[in-house]
Amino acid sequence: MLIVGERINTFKKSVMRAYEQKDAEFIRSEVLRQAEAGAEVIDLNAGSSLEVEPENMRWAVKIAQEAVDLPLSIDSPNPGTIQAGFAVCRRPELAWVNSVTLEKERLEELLPLAREHGCPLVALCRDSEGLAQDGAQRVEVGKRIADTVDRAGISLDKLYLDTLIEPISVHSDAAMVSLATLEGLKEALPGIKTIISLSGVSFGLPGRKLLHRVYLPLLMRGGLDAVFLDPLDRALMSAIKAAEALLGRDEFCMGYITAHREGSIEG
Amino acid sequence: MLIVGERINTFKKSVMRAYEQKDAEFIRSEVLRQAEAGAEVIDLNAGSSLEVEPENMRWAVKIAQEAVDLPLSIDSPNPGTIQAGFAVCRRPELAWVNSVTLEKERLEELLPLAREHGCPLVALCRDSEGLAQDGAQRVEVGKRIADTVDRAGISLDKLYLDTLIEPISVHSDAAMVSLATLEGLKEALPGIKTIISLSGVSFGLPGRKLLHRVYLPLLMRGGLDAVFLDPLDRALMSAIKAAEALLGRDEFCMGYITAHREGSIEG
Repeated sequence: MLIVGERINTFKKSVMRAYEQKDAEFIRSEVLRQAEAGAEVIDLNAGSSLEVEPENMRWAVKIAQEAVDLPLSIDSPNPGTIQAGFAVCRRPELAWVNSVTLEKERLEELLPLAREHGCPLVALCRDSEGLAQDGAQRVEVGKRIADTVDRAGISLDKLYLDTLIEPISVHSDAAMVSLATLEGLKEALPGIKTIISLSGVSFGLPGRKLLHRVYLPLLMRGGLDAVFLDPLDRALMSAIKAAEALLGRDEFCMGYITAHREGSIEG
Repeated sequence: MLIVGERINTFKKSVMRAYEQKDAEFIRSEVLRQAEAGAEVIDLNAGSSLEVEPENMRWAVKIAQEAVDLPLSIDSPNPGTIQAGFAVCRRPELAWVNSVTLEKERLEELLPLAREHGCPLVALCRDSEGLAQDGAQRVEVGKRIADTVDRAGISLDKLYLDTLIEPISVHSDAAMVSLATLEGLKEALPGIKTIISLSGVSFGLPGRKLLHRVYLPLLMRGGLDAVFLDPLDRALMSAIKAAEALLGRDEFCMGYITAHREGSIEG
């Protein structure tokens, strides 16, 4: 399962401040720490203010690609910001378009970009009517997205469908709806890739990290392909290793045993 | 999900010593601590030596039922030991016969006991040919057991089918085979109850507790009804609470939030 480091997100005050003060060292450090902790892709979110976001994204992309060779996920609800980020990417064919939905403007501006670069594309299973509360309906949206992406001439193996997740503090069945969406997508669209932003499940609750490390193995068993998470959460990363061993994806548990020997399992 | 406290088992040296030295205080303390930590049934295992086991079991049952009002699981591979334990049970209708298999002698001696008391009965999904490596085969054994139990005049709602579990250090797919068995039993025998002995999954590996708390939520999602575990493992008990919230079995997460407020979540 592919790990996308989620820490550079303006939901966090420290990140917002770094953008405001143009604190390059902060961004660089966050990129490096996530890479060292096992992130395979680095997500870059630069807020949602149309005025400063494109410029902030360009700034962050430049810092991140100086720091590591990993793919960058250019994360914004605004197509213009994603285009701005891609414009300064040294290797745009590896960068991620994060994200599109079925909403017309996001599709029309971003599908050509994804096709041009042949790069990965994250699509949220949501249409202009908002987020369905039901797994089967989200799967239908996912199928329409896959169809649209396919018709745009983009290979479906570049597509990551985001099941979306709501807090279980708001909807008690939210975690199971997202898991059902994941399983439904896997069944309806064999070979399709799925992704989720883990921390959304726990908003408003205490003990959030515990919820993340219990939920993720359930998603892994459902076939989750990639996840946005905080790779500095060592207990979570340890749970992933344990889950891989339990799911039969770690022959003779060698990965788990090695990680334990190296002291990277927090058990 | 019903929690059966597994700590009084002669696999543990301290328990073996308590039996040898007739250390009643040790047994009493283990019973009480498990009850306080949330065990709803207390398992009593007294070894496997045919010479001393029946007497040890009688001794342990007397101590345990003085200490708590909880049901006791009379745990032995030897029918005579289970009968000895039941003979001194104050409330045998609540005690558990743990366990039978499809092996002839265990069935012939213990099914009448279970029928007589109308008590719960644990049956291992194994026949005289040993343990199947394949989930579908274990489900077939489970179906034969359910059929046999039913024909013996025992209500199937008293039956707990144990999926059995092998260490993932020996068979990389062992945890998934047991989960597939559980799911297969639930599909083949709607309404049937299932149980598993959690710690079997991790023999031979470091970080065993981590494996237990990652595996159990997967089993819970599969519909596991009861589990043998160590209720003093606070991180494991916390994972159960988190899993209940994530599985949509804890409306508005009130159980989780309350447990957190009371300081019983190790997160």
